[in-house]
Amino acid sequence: MIEYSTLAAVDLGSNSFRLQVARVEGKQLYPLDSLREMVRLAAGLTADKRLDEDSQARALDCLKRFGERLRGFPPHAVRAVGTNTLRVARNASVFLKKAEAAIGFPIEIIAGREEARLIYLGVAHGLPASANARLVMDIGGGSTEFIIGNRLKPVKLESLYMGCVSYSLNFFPDGKITKGAMKRAELSARGEIQAIATEFSSIHWQDAFGSSGTARALGDIIKLNNFTTAGSEGEITQEGLENFRDHLLKVGDTRKLELAGLRADRAAVIPGGFAIMSAAFSELGIHRLSQAMGALRQGVLYDLLGRFHKHDMREVTVRRFMQRYRVDSAQANRVESLALLLGEQLLEDFPEQAEELLQTLSWAARLHEVGISIAHSGYHKHSAYILGNADMPGFSRREQERLSSLMLLHRGTAGKARELIAFPLDFALLGALRLATLFHRSRSDIMMPRMGMEISLDDKELELHIEQGWLESNPLTDTALSAEIEQWAALGFKFQIKKLEEKKGLSTGKSARSTTGT
Amino acid sequence: MIEYSTLAAVDLGSNSFRLQVARVEGKQLYPLDSLREMVRLAAGLTADKRLDEDSQARALDCLKRFGERLRGFPPHAVRAVGTNTLRVARNASVFLKKAEAAIGFPIEIIAGREEARLIYLGVAHGLPASANARLVMDIGGGSTEFIIGNRLKPVKLESLYMGCVSYSLNFFPDGKITKGAMKRAELSARGEIQAIATEFSSIHWQDAFGSSGTARALGDIIKLNNFTTAGSEGEITQEGLENFRDHLLKVGDTRKLELAGLRADRAAVIPGGFAIMSAAFSELGIHRLSQAMGALRQGVLYDLLGRFHKHDMREVTVRRFMQRYRVDSAQANRVESLALLLGEQLLEDFPEQAEELLQTLSWAARLHEVGISIAHSGYHKHSAYILGNADMPGFSRREQERLSSLMLLHRGTAGKARELIAFPLDFALLGALRLATLFHRSRSDIMMPRMGMEISLDDKELELHIEQGWLESNPLTDTALSAEIEQWAALGFKFQIKKLEEKKGLSTGKSARSTTGT
Repeated sequence: MIEYSTLAAVDLGSNSFRLQVARVEGKQLYPLDSLREMVRLAAGLTADKRLDEDSQARALDCLKRFGERLRGFPPHAVRAVGTNTLRVARNASVFLKKAEAAIGFPIEIIAGREEARLIYLGVAHGLPASANARLVMDIGGGSTEFIIGNRLKPVKLESLYMGCVSYSLNFFPDGKITKGAMKRAELSARGEIQAIATEFSSIHWQDAFGSSGTARALGDIIKLNNFTTAGSEGEITQEGLENFRDHLLKVGDTRKLELAGLRADRAAVIPGGFAIMSAAFSELGIHRLSQAMGALRQGVLYDLLGRFHKHDMREVTVRRFMQRYRVDSAQANRVESLALLLGEQLLEDFPEQAEELLQTLSWAARLHEVGISIAHSGYHKHSAYILGNADMPGFSRREQERLSSLMLLHRGTAGKARELIAFPLDFALLGALRLATLFHRSRSDIMMPRMGMEISLDDKELELHIEQGWLESNPLTDTALSAEIEQWAALGFKFQIKKLEEKKGLSTGKSARSTTGT
Repeated sequence: MIEYSTLAAVDLGSNSFRLQVARVEGKQLYPLDSLREMVRLAAGLTADKRLDEDSQARALDCLKRFGERLRGFPPHAVRAVGTNTLRVARNASVFLKKAEAAIGFPIEIIAGREEARLIYLGVAHGLPASANARLVMDIGGGSTEFIIGNRLKPVKLESLYMGCVSYSLNFFPDGKITKGAMKRAELSARGEIQAIATEFSSIHWQDAFGSSGTARALGDIIKLNNFTTAGSEGEITQEGLENFRDHLLKVGDTRKLELAGLRADRAAVIPGGFAIMSAAFSELGIHRLSQAMGALRQGVLYDLLGRFHKHDMREVTVRRFMQRYRVDSAQANRVESLALLLGEQLLEDFPEQAEELLQTLSWAARLHEVGISIAHSGYHKHSAYILGNADMPGFSRREQERLSSLMLLHRGTAGKARELIAFPLDFALLGALRLATLFHRSRSDIMMPRMGMEISLDDKELELHIEQGWLESNPLTDTALSAEIEQWAALGFKFQIKKLEEKKGLSTGKSARSTTGT
């Protein structure tokens, strides 16, 4: 993989969109430039969970501006991620197409725990070195992430479905702040946090940090208005929160709030953010919470940087999953080797996409049997379920869905591939994976054809060249290969098996390859 | 549980139905009586996998006769199981209702591996003691089971979707036995067996046994017609199979087959059974296979007997699953204790069904968090997926589906329960489980109300009596309880929370109970 000297991250948050550009120096990142726009996407969610026209227009305008700044960046140097509002919006996929066109780069929707992992990565890089266990809390527009971590390593991750925008809209819809509304908001947030309270309570950490705009605003307000007697660095304290609550109830309306430290564009969402922060103090036993500098966008950048330095979190996850689901690694490696051998040939004409596609193929081959942990019969469906639903650190939703589809289709009837496969080149991955599992069905080391195999994909024609003699001495594989013709026909492909006579060599004139199972 | 002196098992096989009655003496069973009818259910499967009218009529007639023999048996002394044809038939549930009415007892459909486990249990009890590892193979009408076991313990279990009836119909539809058809049948069977060949090959066992009618017929034919020079006890050998194949091809038609050892009602399905046996010899490296006496029905009886002796396989499975999916056992035990306490009250008026229902509730409580192993968010759906799809030794399909439904409904919206809950009393289990998880949401030991709680279910009214003071000091639980009212309304239930003032005691006059989390 090429290394870039400048990387960019885009965070399509529920409250604001942010662009961060950084310069790479060794394993460190130095901020170059950043943009932030209050798009308030979560406020555009209708009752039936669809993004309304207005919010889509605001978002697309913003992304066009970001796109201008990113013009000329190579594709792998940019990563754009969407969080809770895009996770829940029913029309997210339609919106995403337009959004990707506007910014000019692919956008990934990431799961809540993946968001938590990336936030911690961003925050941890910005904190002074310490051996203390840390709690990091990030109140977003639509979700709130909790992480306990040690140095650069997250230990526990959670994402709860509550945020400063959604809470402000639900409990303070007209901007009025009454005692009853505040009590309901705080109780509701405490109910959510209670479910994770045992794991995240203060006995598990020494220092607490807040990384969101809400934490920053609360800290500033408490400091600048002398709401607390303790702390002078913008820490949030119990006393500070109580004094601010009194003030909120006294003023009683977000439109009338005028306080040092509270920006005008934050006022509308501060009561919801306050309720969540106050609930966390009660339920987790927090006494003091400091402001942290990093956030999701820095985490995305460090994660991107890690991929260039071979610290790809996705590789770590694949290895962990193989252990967790007790995958037979000998079989996984056999299938992986053959799948990559076939995949390289199938992708010969697409050198630009090949690296990424072969990486996906390697993951799929190593994970295709995770479902056996649930049951042997129909295991490919269980593999698809696990990879479609599990928390897979480093993977985006789309990457998980892609792996999940490959799992479902790698054996049995392939007919569903027409709907499930989004990228045409994924048919090449499917072909490589289906054939690799077919050849290794006996789960033992087999003698592959002496002259190797050649395979090619040309539009809708899949051609396999293989020695006739080998097929004759492996009648089971021969039978199974013949059955593949029908499966590919159902996908609109013509699968042809060209039987080569021995000694005549391969007809295509390419050098013959030879491989033996290891 | 009461212990019975006579037990009965019914096997609704794909080829024949069998009834076995046995007398219990200590931990041993002695056969008393048996019935067998060639129903050939698998032959009644239409192309779109529905049982046709004729085969249903044959089956119901047979079950009526079995029902007559079973009249007067207490419900827990009889277990009737259905295997592959009922697993795959699309109209199985409609048929089952009629079948249960005919025989007068519930019928469980069991999964392939559960069938394999029970077959081994039946076979192992009938074999002489030996320290040798054993292969047991059972060619049924619609599926074939393979087991490797040691003494009474199965070590590996597999069930493949091929049987003597389905193979005879597919490859020899008109009874004609040609060389080509035999080759296709054997290759197809070898293809199926190849997938398990590494795990079941002869390096893993010393003695091989066949437990089905097919094995018995093949052994008898080979012995009585001197098709082999080795073995005189009815063993199947490679030589014997080859000579029999020659004979089959020479005669060329099942209707013309007349051989010592071949009963007329077996002739039609012998070529399919032969092809599977011959394929197993090739793929697994079997040289000699002896006849075993026991079979599925004996296994069902021993399993039933084990339940009375507290060796319930289902208990073992639940404990194993808690380990395998790393369930937080402290939380599982907390939820289980409270669920059982509530469940006992809810089922007070149903003493006959209570024991079985509370056992199900206990399993559900201990397993409700298995899905967290996949992901925390939406874990109840993942728990439902795992329990609906996993191999769970000892559990029938219906029991797994019931547990799976309880998983899906134990939190969040309960609306789907209207479709998913088949037995009215399961609403009591659902109520107990929902409330137990709700009260223990904090995952820590909580102080329960000093005077305990009382709960009752009367037709469509669910009433919870609880101290007002306790609710006031536990506002989160109070809020969550209020939200339950709406959930139960969606199910057509009226959920009422009766708040009791302290010191006045419980209004119902029942003795107050007190409980503390442990």
